[in-house]
Amino acid sequence: MSPVSRRQFLGAAAVAVAGLPLRAPGMAASAQRPFVDASALRERIEALSVFGRPPGGTFADGVSRVAYSDADIAGRRHVMDLIRAARLTPRIDPAGNIFARRDGRENALPPILFGSHIDSVPSGGNFDGDLGSLAAIGVVDALNRANVITRHPLEVVVWSAEEGVAFGRGLAGSRIVAGDVRPADMDAVWNGLRRADGVRKLGGDPDRIMDAVRPKGAHHAYLELHIEQGGTLDQNRVDIGVVEGIVAIERLSAVITGFANHAGTTPMAARQDALVAASQLTLAVREAVTSRPGRQVGTVGQLTVEPNAPNVVPGTVRMTIELRDLSTDKLMEIAKDIRGRAASIAAATKTQITINELSRNPPALAAEDVQRVIERSASSLKLSTQRQPSGAGHDAQMMAQLGPMGMIFVPSVGGISHSPKELTRWEDCANGANVLLQAVLDIDTK
Amino acid sequence: MSPVSRRQFLGAAAVAVAGLPLRAPGMAASAQRPFVDASALRERIEALSVFGRPPGGTFADGVSRVAYSDADIAGRRHVMDLIRAARLTPRIDPAGNIFARRDGRENALPPILFGSHIDSVPSGGNFDGDLGSLAAIGVVDALNRANVITRHPLEVVVWSAEEGVAFGRGLAGSRIVAGDVRPADMDAVWNGLRRADGVRKLGGDPDRIMDAVRPKGAHHAYLELHIEQGGTLDQNRVDIGVVEGIVAIERLSAVITGFANHAGTTPMAARQDALVAASQLTLAVREAVTSRPGRQVGTVGQLTVEPNAPNVVPGTVRMTIELRDLSTDKLMEIAKDIRGRAASIAAATKTQITINELSRNPPALAAEDVQRVIERSASSLKLSTQRQPSGAGHDAQMMAQLGPMGMIFVPSVGGISHSPKELTRWEDCANGANVLLQAVLDIDTK
Repeated sequence: MSPVSRRQFLGAAAVAVAGLPLRAPGMAASAQRPFVDASALRERIEALSVFGRPPGGTFADGVSRVAYSDADIAGRRHVMDLIRAARLTPRIDPAGNIFARRDGRENALPPILFGSHIDSVPSGGNFDGDLGSLAAIGVVDALNRANVITRHPLEVVVWSAEEGVAFGRGLAGSRIVAGDVRPADMDAVWNGLRRADGVRKLGGDPDRIMDAVRPKGAHHAYLELHIEQGGTLDQNRVDIGVVEGIVAIERLSAVITGFANHAGTTPMAARQDALVAASQLTLAVREAVTSRPGRQVGTVGQLTVEPNAPNVVPGTVRMTIELRDLSTDKLMEIAKDIRGRAASIAAATKTQITINELSRNPPALAAEDVQRVIERSASSLKLSTQRQPSGAGHDAQMMAQLGPMGMIFVPSVGGISHSPKELTRWEDCANGANVLLQAVLDIDTK
Repeated sequence: MSPVSRRQFLGAAAVAVAGLPLRAPGMAASAQRPFVDASALRERIEALSVFGRPPGGTFADGVSRVAYSDADIAGRRHVMDLIRAARLTPRIDPAGNIFARRDGRENALPPILFGSHIDSVPSGGNFDGDLGSLAAIGVVDALNRANVITRHPLEVVVWSAEEGVAFGRGLAGSRIVAGDVRPADMDAVWNGLRRADGVRKLGGDPDRIMDAVRPKGAHHAYLELHIEQGGTLDQNRVDIGVVEGIVAIERLSAVITGFANHAGTTPMAARQDALVAASQLTLAVREAVTSRPGRQVGTVGQLTVEPNAPNVVPGTVRMTIELRDLSTDKLMEIAKDIRGRAASIAAATKTQITINELSRNPPALAAEDVQRVIERSASSLKLSTQRQPSGAGHDAQMMAQLGPMGMIFVPSVGGISHSPKELTRWEDCANGANVLLQAVLDIDTK
């Protein structure tokens, strides 16, 4: 679809709706075909953006709505008001997640769960998490307006503390629900706060987190709308990304030990320069990743030098190596390649290089039939799609442990995220919300 | 000279002394040929090492006798006692330097100045500075024992605050004497202390530092014995290094600006990775330095990454590039080469690289005739010599601004310095001290 026709989507969708049967499965006799109100969605995104906005800033200045902060608490209170306005009752589980159930026609069936998060990284943007959370409320609104009662009960979720930090583990709220956290983990300090105190601040109950755990099969399906964060949809001018899965992440640490010595008195040939070795290793990581076909990525994101003085040959360098791909096998192959290259570099530079695995996260695959549902939903709205992995982690990966999962991506302008410059066009926000709505209705028929 | 014969040097020197004329120029009739007492020198080095020694440590644990610290004050008091024991009167100039004059036969002549410093880097060794300072006292002792009165007056100096820090300027005491400091510089804070307060703590007078400045021609010559700090003497099994000069230092900063983005969602081809560019530049610096013949060195010693998180593609890297050689022209040529390579790297990596000159220190050449005096002195003691640049800075480079300068290097085992592991063999300490003594006597005849 060309940019012009994309901008005309809302008009085009109205035509498309007119061409569809008036009574979709599960609709009450009086129902009109439901759609998410694009301007209400925009207003909600703008209204939420004030919680955590820098003092004196505007929407364009982004948000710092870090988990457990006062801005997070205030934002969650605001979102709970929106849930109530959508005629649902918000409930905070022991993990601090907000759930709101909408009854279906067969309430013994497991619910269709959908939502996202509203916490942000420091100096983050207004779309990461917010869009999926507010679109979920928009879906309920749309069903209310159209008087649609689904067969399955529906459940909106706003996950707590999705964003992690360096070496930390994000997805805190969904991780608890998936049973991936032990009570003792509540004592860990994150961002200067004991996790238990953070959860309590949200209205959760850190002494009862095991009560938040849900069993396998707890949901009919989990759906999450999210901004892509990468730039491929924007670049390819595709409306909707159908997520194949959330990539596996292999995280390694490398410690390079040379010999710190005087930068004036140590001849070049006598040096054991840890930074020269680290530079070679950084380039070797890139080479090992890019010399293979595929969409895998590899990053040296953190690197520190000791003693880090202009007049001392670096003695020690510590760095991280992070590899991501849908295939764990491919990551293991690349990691092996990197270890081999590191051994040659160590020998050539007279340094020692020790590589350790810091963590290995398995991939979380989206259910094939949910991917097809999303494609069909987009297609019914005349939106173009592409299948793609998610390079970023999402609460959806925790929910994939409990049942069928699917994610809907919408374009991030320029691929920028985790930044005040993060931007998704309003029509793309509305497109994503309507695909979510159609996907919920489609899955409900299964 | 083989290691065995070097270890036998003290015995050999006694033989050599016996073979020399008993009455050197300037000796009183009753004089024996003077020599520095090797065991007294060793005892003095060991005694000084307790000032700034880590609690519970031994000689092998090195010292932290940082300028203006209590350990520095105590060490200086101890050294002034040694000067008094050598029958001289220590005097502290307004810059905090310790001077002690020994009258000559013609006291209107400018003095021969010699000495070094006793402050250390944090966690430094027991030879850097200490050897040259204590050997200077040993020379006076030797002349006293032999009843030698020189023609020129002699002046022993213990410079204050020689060791600098990253981006700071060391050689503080000698710099003031050379006229390279303005009164306002005394307000600068160094190591948490206002420079003026540091100088006052030493017994100097920061309000009168201009009174410490000496004019060109103030000295007949300046001599300094110092450990090499590099490893070439040790490696080549040469006894004495004759310093040709102290190298010029060109210090550059490079700022590499890429674009910080999500390490999971940003495809490899779309990245503007500042650390990949910085790694290429680090290797380019080494290549630009080593692809030319000569003894020049180049170092990327300091490098910081932003935001420096494992899961973020580095957006900015700041690094230092330091180049050293006796020839400023060669440094300018290498710096130009590096700038050219940086431009290609920036284009290839879609980053911006900005290189600025932080500082440019000119070389300080040793006087040719003083170099010959040192060679002759070593030769008279049957010690082997090599000419070499000093890659490290020394107070001698400030004194080169006022008159003829020469430096005597002795081997550093393994080339290690600025470390508790810094080591110069006792026989090499004694060799250096005796070369200093002979050079003083030789220069005195000019």
